[in-house]
Amino acid sequence: MPYFDAASAAPLHPVARQALLASLDEGWADPARLHREGRRARLLLDAAREAAAEAVGCRPDELVFTPSGTHAVHSGVSGALAGRRRVGGRLVVSAVEHSSVLHAGQAHAAAGGTVTEVPVGRTGAVDPEAFAAELRGPDGGPDGGTDSGAGSGAAGSGVALACLQSANHEVGTEQPVAEVAEACRAAGVPLLVDAAQSLGWGPVPEGWSLLAASAHKWGGPAGVGLLAVRKGVRFAPQGPSDERESGRAPGFENLPAIVAAAASLRAVRAEAAAEGARLRALVDRIRARVPELVPDVEVVGDPVRRLPHLVTFSCLYVDGETLLSELDREGFSVSSGSSCTSSTLTPSHVLRAMGVLSEGNVRVSLPAGTTEADVDRFLAVLPGVVSGVRDRLGAGAPVPGGGEDLVVDALGKRCPLPVIELAKVIGTVRVGGTVTVLADDEAARLDIPAWCEMRAQEYVGATPSPRGGHAYVVRRLS
Amino acid sequence: MPYFDAASAAPLHPVARQALLASLDEGWADPARLHREGRRARLLLDAAREAAAEAVGCRPDELVFTPSGTHAVHSGVSGALAGRRRVGGRLVVSAVEHSSVLHAGQAHAAAGGTVTEVPVGRTGAVDPEAFAAELRGPDGGPDGGTDSGAGSGAAGSGVALACLQSANHEVGTEQPVAEVAEACRAAGVPLLVDAAQSLGWGPVPEGWSLLAASAHKWGGPAGVGLLAVRKGVRFAPQGPSDERESGRAPGFENLPAIVAAAASLRAVRAEAAAEGARLRALVDRIRARVPELVPDVEVVGDPVRRLPHLVTFSCLYVDGETLLSELDREGFSVSSGSSCTSSTLTPSHVLRAMGVLSEGNVRVSLPAGTTEADVDRFLAVLPGVVSGVRDRLGAGAPVPGGGEDLVVDALGKRCPLPVIELAKVIGTVRVGGTVTVLADDEAARLDIPAWCEMRAQEYVGATPSPRGGHAYVVRRLS
Repeated sequence: MPYFDAASAAPLHPVARQALLASLDEGWADPARLHREGRRARLLLDAAREAAAEAVGCRPDELVFTPSGTHAVHSGVSGALAGRRRVGGRLVVSAVEHSSVLHAGQAHAAAGGTVTEVPVGRTGAVDPEAFAAELRGPDGGPDGGTDSGAGSGAAGSGVALACLQSANHEVGTEQPVAEVAEACRAAGVPLLVDAAQSLGWGPVPEGWSLLAASAHKWGGPAGVGLLAVRKGVRFAPQGPSDERESGRAPGFENLPAIVAAAASLRAVRAEAAAEGARLRALVDRIRARVPELVPDVEVVGDPVRRLPHLVTFSCLYVDGETLLSELDREGFSVSSGSSCTSSTLTPSHVLRAMGVLSEGNVRVSLPAGTTEADVDRFLAVLPGVVSGVRDRLGAGAPVPGGGEDLVVDALGKRCPLPVIELAKVIGTVRVGGTVTVLADDEAARLDIPAWCEMRAQEYVGATPSPRGGHAYVVRRLS
Repeated sequence: MPYFDAASAAPLHPVARQALLASLDEGWADPARLHREGRRARLLLDAAREAAAEAVGCRPDELVFTPSGTHAVHSGVSGALAGRRRVGGRLVVSAVEHSSVLHAGQAHAAAGGTVTEVPVGRTGAVDPEAFAAELRGPDGGPDGGTDSGAGSGAAGSGVALACLQSANHEVGTEQPVAEVAEACRAAGVPLLVDAAQSLGWGPVPEGWSLLAASAHKWGGPAGVGLLAVRKGVRFAPQGPSDERESGRAPGFENLPAIVAAAASLRAVRAEAAAEGARLRALVDRIRARVPELVPDVEVVGDPVRRLPHLVTFSCLYVDGETLLSELDREGFSVSSGSSCTSSTLTPSHVLRAMGVLSEGNVRVSLPAGTTEADVDRFLAVLPGVVSGVRDRLGAGAPVPGGGEDLVVDALGKRCPLPVIELAKVIGTVRVGGTVTVLADDEAARLDIPAWCEMRAQEYVGATPSPRGGHAYVVRRLS
């Protein structure tokens, strides 16, 4: 039963399991205590910190263990922002950061700070020049960045912190961390790198000031994140004080899990080069074969500068939740950025920022050990699953014709139905004529333009509809 | 090798170990995902929540899992305070709460709120009447409470939240939770009960609004706390938002540890009545025998209304760190609230609030399964260890005599030396004469009055000394 959702959580690595078991017996006591059980726990904690620091590429006293990657990001962002409050209240992030970074930014904006989101291109990568421009302050930046929050005009309008992920968690695209780090250095702005998706594959390029990661993404246990803060970076931990982990991670240390996290990071790193090359070839095969096997598919993300194990594609006229559930029935566990698979009914902010199709979205992230046979079976099953879903949704070939402009009322219909209705009728209007789709589903804003690009039709634009939602106008070109 | 520090962290219960192992294989996936691994994780999480809620005595949807007891307290206090911001900015806590509660209070005061500490008596318990008086607002309270923070005069001077532990972590005294809960109900103030030390022994009395606990205190794994918030309690989670655990505990769920925590809570509860009675008898024996076996000892805490497994005593003329290390050498792991065993050089705030001796302090907290033979061996070893430390510190019998008033310069000398010097010379002044001790060690403020009470001498008072520290005046009565 192949599990293809390693980017959500990887199964426990055998080394993690072994280390966890061993330290359940040796590492349950309080490492702050002076008795032998406490001293033994302290030794384990110190050794785990040294191993993790070596893998991260920092000094042991620069690294603390947190209860999760999310905590590492939240504490890292709030501590770095507070440490540079006098410089300013601006936070610059890429538009495709993990939700933990964006949520930390929202909290900053709610407290009066400003957050600037640097846009990404269609592959999901930021442009280092555009990122650098935002570091020069509110007046030096191009129009691309989107500001939110109330503090932009207040005293201290400088940039306090920049955040950039090492690689994107939804589409696998690697970010230009080295170039952005250099720009941050030149601007005197600390850079926090969220390395959650990449740390198991190798160290982050030099130049970061803070680094966050999460053990369960590399096959370590849940309950452990890493936060590294370079010496010399101004850092003021927020929230109630606590004497543990240099005052940067409150609460009793989750020692057995910490030991397992450090041991498994070493282990996956030792296997990373070989396993990465193997999975990279399997992902290349998925990237090449899926568009051949399934019509109307968009494979997204950078084909080369990417994580070795992750690929994402979107299928027109397919509802993501049904697709996931049909793949699950066939034994394949994948995830999706489609709006119908999230609690918010909005498509993934990553797909939105990239401006790519969001309907029928599938993320495949291969855990270590995935076999060629697993991937082949996936490729064999996928076309039938997609066409089955399309059939049930009535996504047939467009009816040919040459009639008048049309208005399609898809109000109240959820993704992918508005796009299916559009595709059905486009052939019934004359070339040069328009179809106006009334839709109030959030995904339509992304998927109708994406459909036009994929089908070589013209997306004219959208205006608010008097009955709610928007009127999306599409001109038939062929 | 008897481990007598269960109140810091209990060894892993066999049921916790078994449940943890089982859920390493079944519970590593993301419970928010729709695939089978995710659904399996969700089932485990739901079952753990139901089991924990039943043990706590609340509805499953009132309980969330946090990364630690400290996180549960921090989130519970900040969320409840924010939820009642319109009512007022006052937080009322007992003076002997766990540091996580006091640190949350300090953060509240730093943000402009007011914190009132309700004092305790010599056994360590709050007086429900005194607690109730503080709930009536700043003008209705007696002089006993100590306010800190800047917000007391601001708009909304009402009490937003009260905190009371179920039982004290350092001396074992049970707090009058039911009476204080009734007073809170009458005043319309929510009550947060920190049940970290008692939850394994039984449910908290009815009437609480929020409850926090920590799994590694009952034999569960590290990395799991509980926060229960009763329906109807106004609660506004602070910090960056996160969709997990009802928005009250950010970060990927530490599922194997959560499952182990819930399973072990059930297991220890099933054993609690029998094991509690057995350990209570062992602690009674320690409470009775230590003062018979060791001269100049004060056993502290309530002898009856107390945790079954915990007893604390202090030995005059002994340095706590040496005592701990000698006991460790004899194979006994205990902890201490003496100033010389903490990083701050101040004695435990609990002992200080109780006004009892802090030097030579030993906390014995018996884990489940402690045998009578272990306790007997401890009682056999203790007298020799204490007298050995006293001999090395030169704490001999006082020299008799009838001379003039004396001044002893103990500036720069650490606990227990100021008290040892006092004891040495008290006999050399005439009855009715005074000894003035110059001391700048923080512990002297507590230990010189405590010594006077134990030795039936009169503590006259303390005044700031021109050379730093204080001049403590003691009158010889006998």
